[in-house]
Amino acid sequence: MLRTIIRTFTINSNYNFYRSIKLPNSSIFLQKRFQNLYIANKSQEENVHINLNSNRFTYRTYNCEQLRLQNVGEKVTLCGWLEYQRMNKFLVIRDGYGHTQLIIPDKNEELQRLIKSLPYESIIEVYGTVLSRPRDMINSKQTTGEIEVLIESLAVLNRACDDLPFNLREFQKAKEALRMKYRYIDLRFPEMQRNLRFRSKFIMDVSNFLVNECSFVNVETPTLFKKTPGGAQEFIVPTRFPGEFYSLVQSPQQFKQMLMAGGIDRYFQIAHCYRDEGSRSDRQPEFAQLDIEMSFTNVEGVTGLIEEMLQLCWPSFLKPLPKTFSKLSYKEAIEMYGTDKPDTSFDFTIKNCTDILKKNTNLYSTVDFGAYYLIFKNPYNRLPKSVKNQLNLLTENYSETKFIQSNIINAAEWTTKMSNLLGSNIAAELQSNIPITDNSVVFLALGNRSHVLQLLGAVRLEYIKFLESEGHKIKDGCVHPLWVIDFPLFEEGIEPGTLQSAHHPFTAPHPDDAHLLEISPKKVRALAYDLVLNGHEIAGGSIRIHNRKEQEFILQLLNIDKSLLQHHLDMLESGCPPHGGIAIGLDRLLAVMLNTQSIRDVIAFPKTFEGRDPITSAPSPITDHDKKLYHLEVATKSRL
Amino acid sequence: MLRTIIRTFTINSNYNFYRSIKLPNSSIFLQKRFQNLYIANKSQEENVHINLNSNRFTYRTYNCEQLRLQNVGEKVTLCGWLEYQRMNKFLVIRDGYGHTQLIIPDKNEELQRLIKSLPYESIIEVYGTVLSRPRDMINSKQTTGEIEVLIESLAVLNRACDDLPFNLREFQKAKEALRMKYRYIDLRFPEMQRNLRFRSKFIMDVSNFLVNECSFVNVETPTLFKKTPGGAQEFIVPTRFPGEFYSLVQSPQQFKQMLMAGGIDRYFQIAHCYRDEGSRSDRQPEFAQLDIEMSFTNVEGVTGLIEEMLQLCWPSFLKPLPKTFSKLSYKEAIEMYGTDKPDTSFDFTIKNCTDILKKNTNLYSTVDFGAYYLIFKNPYNRLPKSVKNQLNLLTENYSETKFIQSNIINAAEWTTKMSNLLGSNIAAELQSNIPITDNSVVFLALGNRSHVLQLLGAVRLEYIKFLESEGHKIKDGCVHPLWVIDFPLFEEGIEPGTLQSAHHPFTAPHPDDAHLLEISPKKVRALAYDLVLNGHEIAGGSIRIHNRKEQEFILQLLNIDKSLLQHHLDMLESGCPPHGGIAIGLDRLLAVMLNTQSIRDVIAFPKTFEGRDPITSAPSPITDHDKKLYHLEVATKSRL
Repeated sequence: MLRTIIRTFTINSNYNFYRSIKLPNSSIFLQKRFQNLYIANKSQEENVHINLNSNRFTYRTYNCEQLRLQNVGEKVTLCGWLEYQRMNKFLVIRDGYGHTQLIIPDKNEELQRLIKSLPYESIIEVYGTVLSRPRDMINSKQTTGEIEVLIESLAVLNRACDDLPFNLREFQKAKEALRMKYRYIDLRFPEMQRNLRFRSKFIMDVSNFLVNECSFVNVETPTLFKKTPGGAQEFIVPTRFPGEFYSLVQSPQQFKQMLMAGGIDRYFQIAHCYRDEGSRSDRQPEFAQLDIEMSFTNVEGVTGLIEEMLQLCWPSFLKPLPKTFSKLSYKEAIEMYGTDKPDTSFDFTIKNCTDILKKNTNLYSTVDFGAYYLIFKNPYNRLPKSVKNQLNLLTENYSETKFIQSNIINAAEWTTKMSNLLGSNIAAELQSNIPITDNSVVFLALGNRSHVLQLLGAVRLEYIKFLESEGHKIKDGCVHPLWVIDFPLFEEGIEPGTLQSAHHPFTAPHPDDAHLLEISPKKVRALAYDLVLNGHEIAGGSIRIHNRKEQEFILQLLNIDKSLLQHHLDMLESGCPPHGGIAIGLDRLLAVMLNTQSIRDVIAFPKTFEGRDPITSAPSPITDHDKKLYHLEVATKSRL
Repeated sequence: MLRTIIRTFTINSNYNFYRSIKLPNSSIFLQKRFQNLYIANKSQEENVHINLNSNRFTYRTYNCEQLRLQNVGEKVTLCGWLEYQRMNKFLVIRDGYGHTQLIIPDKNEELQRLIKSLPYESIIEVYGTVLSRPRDMINSKQTTGEIEVLIESLAVLNRACDDLPFNLREFQKAKEALRMKYRYIDLRFPEMQRNLRFRSKFIMDVSNFLVNECSFVNVETPTLFKKTPGGAQEFIVPTRFPGEFYSLVQSPQQFKQMLMAGGIDRYFQIAHCYRDEGSRSDRQPEFAQLDIEMSFTNVEGVTGLIEEMLQLCWPSFLKPLPKTFSKLSYKEAIEMYGTDKPDTSFDFTIKNCTDILKKNTNLYSTVDFGAYYLIFKNPYNRLPKSVKNQLNLLTENYSETKFIQSNIINAAEWTTKMSNLLGSNIAAELQSNIPITDNSVVFLALGNRSHVLQLLGAVRLEYIKFLESEGHKIKDGCVHPLWVIDFPLFEEGIEPGTLQSAHHPFTAPHPDDAHLLEISPKKVRALAYDLVLNGHEIAGGSIRIHNRKEQEFILQLLNIDKSLLQHHLDMLESGCPPHGGIAIGLDRLLAVMLNTQSIRDVIAFPKTFEGRDPITSAPSPITDHDKKLYHLEVATKSRL
């Protein structure tokens, strides 16, 4: 004898019924309110989706992922999206945790009619009894696949419209632009649920480690501040003071240094940062950074902290990180990989043959000559024309560089061929030194050393991508963390002969290079370090300058007006401890961990690559009231 | 045989010495790096300042609060500020955790000379041996008062300048403006250390409760968004698109509702919010709010969650919160306290005597007449002239209201005196009904009911302040939480005859009042709730509208162009679950918990009441480059 109540929501007749409905078991959540259903960390780590506490303070008794055989016979209340129905008999209900199959009782034509007319993605609430599925109906792929719920009453809490922009059963098919415009629907896909829920768990684990195991203090710092000299383009914010603007901080750098001077000697924050970099793919105008600073530390202190933190908070669905992370100097990274963010998840490093090729003085005109090669031996020795063409495209930015791609069947033949180009002695020396064997592929580049290395760095990545597409398993599926250290303190500025900071103006010079600061500043290394995971730059940090005179000298070298940083200089001289820190790009790190196509897949509401909000298409024109309040006139294009 | 090494920092001679110093025990922190010194929660709760993990990844071995008798004989390294020295013998070193006394070895004149010339607040690093203090030197008020450290070597890590703006031993004396300008020094005061460290701990506890015990998901939402219609004044951010601006969000309201539609059914965030409210004391242009939203819940669900959260995370140095929080309707709050944020930490509620006074029709001209009183009996019956005058000032905004203050020695005399004013029957009825006794103070107000209540609400607070200043203990020292519920959905708009939202346009009407929406909207109550602690509004929330048609109808009543919220309406119709939530003003809550003068004392870097950054005095003029990039011209005052 089933008690079947069908409720339909009609705006005119029963405006707000759902808020006053008395569910048969609606008092359960109140009774349960003070019952502590704490779940051990272990199960949380194993499956971020399962959590019995997800139903407290709500009127459901289970979420759609929780019911198992052990619940058979229980009366339950579930809420969620109507995802699917078939044969007027079976429904699938879904929420952010999972799916449950429901059954419409036989001969309940009223309910069958209702379900038939109800658009998918409507929100329903169901009360019913948990049954075990007949053996042939068990779905072993679904965590709730052994049970189903026989409906006793069903309420439509919110009817969906009939024409949603995409189908919730086909994640792969929805175009990204459409997914972004209707992000509130897109987030329902299990992939997005996993990404956002994992992100939250990771931030929680990191915070617990920093606070409970390392005594860090979480401090929120302002974002409306003064322009930082010598940094990225900052957004500005007009105020009621005519002509006066805040800048939106590009990082909490100055604040965290003030915290060090202020005795908050171990600081962290999930910092909200802003950079106006125009249209750049995989960059966001606002982004989250895990910002960390410590007093009385050094390079080993900061890198050691981050290593332990990542090891402890690393997701269990990935292979564990190594016990210690490799360190490579900037110089070595460039020499071996042609980039300061090398992908060390596979070998095939760049090799130097400058000494051999230098012997033929006809080969080079440039002062800083270099010759380097990459070699791929059998079975990695396919080089079809299409790949060759693609790799040639990479040389576009290096017109002065000679780039030779060789698909070598017979090594002796190759030497002969090369003799014309390089001279016979050199070709022979090259062959025996590399050494070149039959059935191999060699990429050789010569010219300006720095260009040659950059080019071969790009060739290395591109060719590996091709080999992988051919089915070769080049990478071991692990994440390979790498510290790149000993960065140069300065790089050439935009104006020739000027200097700009490679990291930022607050980075300390390497003490061993202090004597070079005045005579040869470009040779000075910084106490700076980047963390690179499989070719992605994840974090960057440094030991900072804490001495006023030293900071003034660096600003002078950078041609930055020191009066713009008066407060910072005063701060250093007020008794500022030696300190250092790091900022981790959370979006990038999570994208690596979750192996997503884009950082947009780990951000709840990302902007488009143009910087627009895809849902509202903000930015938008402002009102006259705002123009007046903020003393603004918008210059028309013709005037500028 | 002491090995005393004195190092002084000279910019010219030994530029970066400190980074390469090899401390006698510098390898200890490296050895300790992977040693997990986890501390049980209990001790953390008892003293947020003590934590053995505070030294990991640094070159100190203890912080300045940790050494005890049990450490006697140990070789230790401490780092911190030179706070004090006397007799060329004793130093006090300080960090964010506490103080330690150091001793200069006898006859070490070099070190004595150095210390004598070293300005207070210089940063030093000391290596030495822990000794127990002679019995007569023990300082029982200091946690490290039983020990001292005999210096074996001392390094000056950073010399402070000679003329710091205020003295670190005198917190009370430093003026707030000066403290704010040199916030990096101000933060060293133990009071500010306590506030910021407690704030971090509280956020950690709250996050742990929400994530681990209630399955909430922490989601960061954007702050660059589109203007919210019908809300507070929002800051705008110009972009590279001519004439197009972002708005800085005043709250993540729309995003969190989208998360509900997106299946993130339990969301929280420490949200960064912005409001441009001009100059208002105790408001900040940017502020932190603990933002929470849940699907499939109701008023009891949200208030129950917050009650349990606050009880669990309540600081142990305060008396515990009650098991359940009182609830008062908006109407009751106004009637009993004359305000919607009543301070219920003491009694003396407002009493109604309208029925008695109404009998004398000469007394009132207004339609909505009300007469109310407050009575204070012996021993709370002092009413000096100065207090009377001060209370009279409160009537300035209520010129139509009659306000009578009576310091009653003899009740019969008072009745006689009142008879002239009120009529003798009424005066007598009043005296016997209140009832008025000898030696009492009565505040009586009559006129427009709402004005009368507001006035007496203010009088109540002001008079209690006076009684407390006289030494009366009126309050019990507990925090009294109160939910104010059943707020009106609408209030009168600025234009007469229009409506505006009392909370915001997304608040759901009370289902019992649905029938009034069209005929008498001002009578409709909202499913809204505020949390008030001792008269401070700490949090506000509501159950939201989840039905498109209902939302459209409310927008129409509010005269808000629905096209501005097209995305929101579409979202509701995509299958949005019923949901509700709350936002807790973290700054205000922490100021109540920590009993600070101002919310500025619980914020690391607050703005001035004018909205300026006190350290850099931002906002400031922008460059021509920025004007051009953002297509802006600043209107001069004369033009507007």
